[in-house]
Amino acid sequence: MKFAIAGATGAVGDEFLAILANRGIDAGQLRLLASARSAGKKIAYRGTELTVAEMTAESFDGIDVAFFSAGGGRSREYAPHAVKSGAVVIDNSSAYRMDPDVPLVVPEVNPDDVFTHKGIIANPNCSTIIMLMAVAPIYRAFGVERIVCSTYQASSGAGRQAMLELEQQSRDLLDGNPITANVLPHQAAFNIFNHNSGIDESGYNEEERKMVNESRKILHDNGLRISATCVRVPVPRAHSESINLTLANAATPDEVRAVLDAAPGVRVVDDRENNYFPMPIDASGKDEMLVGRIRQDMSQPDGRGIELFISGDQLRKGAALNAVQIADVLAKSPIGTS
Amino acid sequence: MKFAIAGATGAVGDEFLAILANRGIDAGQLRLLASARSAGKKIAYRGTELTVAEMTAESFDGIDVAFFSAGGGRSREYAPHAVKSGAVVIDNSSAYRMDPDVPLVVPEVNPDDVFTHKGIIANPNCSTIIMLMAVAPIYRAFGVERIVCSTYQASSGAGRQAMLELEQQSRDLLDGNPITANVLPHQAAFNIFNHNSGIDESGYNEEERKMVNESRKILHDNGLRISATCVRVPVPRAHSESINLTLANAATPDEVRAVLDAAPGVRVVDDRENNYFPMPIDASGKDEMLVGRIRQDMSQPDGRGIELFISGDQLRKGAALNAVQIADVLAKSPIGTS
Repeated sequence: MKFAIAGATGAVGDEFLAILANRGIDAGQLRLLASARSAGKKIAYRGTELTVAEMTAESFDGIDVAFFSAGGGRSREYAPHAVKSGAVVIDNSSAYRMDPDVPLVVPEVNPDDVFTHKGIIANPNCSTIIMLMAVAPIYRAFGVERIVCSTYQASSGAGRQAMLELEQQSRDLLDGNPITANVLPHQAAFNIFNHNSGIDESGYNEEERKMVNESRKILHDNGLRISATCVRVPVPRAHSESINLTLANAATPDEVRAVLDAAPGVRVVDDRENNYFPMPIDASGKDEMLVGRIRQDMSQPDGRGIELFISGDQLRKGAALNAVQIADVLAKSPIGTS
Repeated sequence: MKFAIAGATGAVGDEFLAILANRGIDAGQLRLLASARSAGKKIAYRGTELTVAEMTAESFDGIDVAFFSAGGGRSREYAPHAVKSGAVVIDNSSAYRMDPDVPLVVPEVNPDDVFTHKGIIANPNCSTIIMLMAVAPIYRAFGVERIVCSTYQASSGAGRQAMLELEQQSRDLLDGNPITANVLPHQAAFNIFNHNSGIDESGYNEEERKMVNESRKILHDNGLRISATCVRVPVPRAHSESINLTLANAATPDEVRAVLDAAPGVRVVDDRENNYFPMPIDASGKDEMLVGRIRQDMSQPDGRGIELFISGDQLRKGAALNAVQIADVLAKSPIGTS
């Protein structure tokens, strides 16, 4: 199989390369693509060097799977060319996610949807993937009527430049120097702010809308009630979420814990005695979603309320890893290990 | 009037001094107290210098109001001596908050409770005060049945040493050096973690329990349903909270905004067009509570759901300012301005 990575020089591109290298994908199976600005850049890969090529309509000849992570505009422009060339596109942008002809897939949740594709499969928003990794197993076991979620999102969700800006601002503030905010709209270091996506007339921002609409599509449940508040915190990597669930059928924390213990890709980190729960530093660079603070919501007297706190690497499971796992489903066996 | 500050050398002690200086309280009206370790320390105050004395049973002779912010153990030990000396104690620790003989007061919410005191008045937990400043006006206008709150709490909530530890860890990580965590149990810099207070068998931590129990006491509503998730974020100062309300009677965001616009001590910061909402850097050092992201909860079809996001300085309104305002109520006019 031959793979293209469109957007190979970004933060998610890094993760694609790390995951594919780890799976033993040969350098000869890879084509790295980016904008003209990054073309010619060399990237080390498994003891050799790959040269980034400029993405054009012809870039996808001979490619089986094209991973796109270069923004919605580039996906809209080049994904159709990739499909025409015979590739299956797995798109990390939001361009096609809500397109009824495009499946939106978290492989642990709705793998079968992969096979309804017409050339393009969409990778959900990072906050959505991370939430559903914990919520979908509970949804299947007990039913979920309502989700109230507040996020603690890392800078790197806004890309590599945002991660560097957090670092630079932190240095400047510690040194007593003025800061500049070029990538993110507000001071990121030692501050928090509501997510930097557009607000509609309802008062929700686009990130929050994505969590609602994408979750409903992935779970095939348009009646699922969700409200989200998306907030950026000065963490370089890995998103966390505080999740309040109203179940359809009452369940105890132990029953929920058992379901999460058995869920693929999830690790329960819920050590009350040592006050040890999911933290972004523990989730960073890891494939597993961390879930903890599993407790009965004391504000719901009927036993249908469950509180959770989760952390997951939004560049891995929230982006590149999920896309590679979609390719695994397509290939009907883990790519690179056959 | 003569005032004692018990715990004058701590982070909250600083704020007491700043607020009292700003109100024109004379150095001669102040007695600064601390543990033996800090006794003899000089503190600049309105062009002069005050010397910190060791707190003893005799420290409160001639004092009218004693502000305590030296931890629960010291309050339990010395507050009775202060009362015996004729002082009214306004205690910032958790020692007496749930004592049925001690009023627990946010002056904007339940000022009349001040006058039921028997020598001690308790200042609520910072996260509780900050939440109620926004929620109580809504509670009075429309009724509130249920609150789901996730916090984004600053390091300084754990004291001055925690604030310094955040700074030191940030420097160490940026310089590529190993970090040490002596004050807080986990890495504070570039990380978030669930609140460092003890977890009971229900899975809630003590900070979350305080928010529930104290809110019920202040609002005189033992049936109020509340669930909180308390999380520390790498912010030096000012707590933020994401609040989901279920109202008793439906209200539109505009109706809620009008109520908050009229609420004392609250400033609505809700600029959707410019994506400008409450941030800890804007709340730090300020007396006002910032409230924004006011929107109809899309997961509540009956119009009874309201979402809010708030930031407030937990050392000011969350601690010292609230205590001084309790003294204002006691004195029936703002102290230092008569």
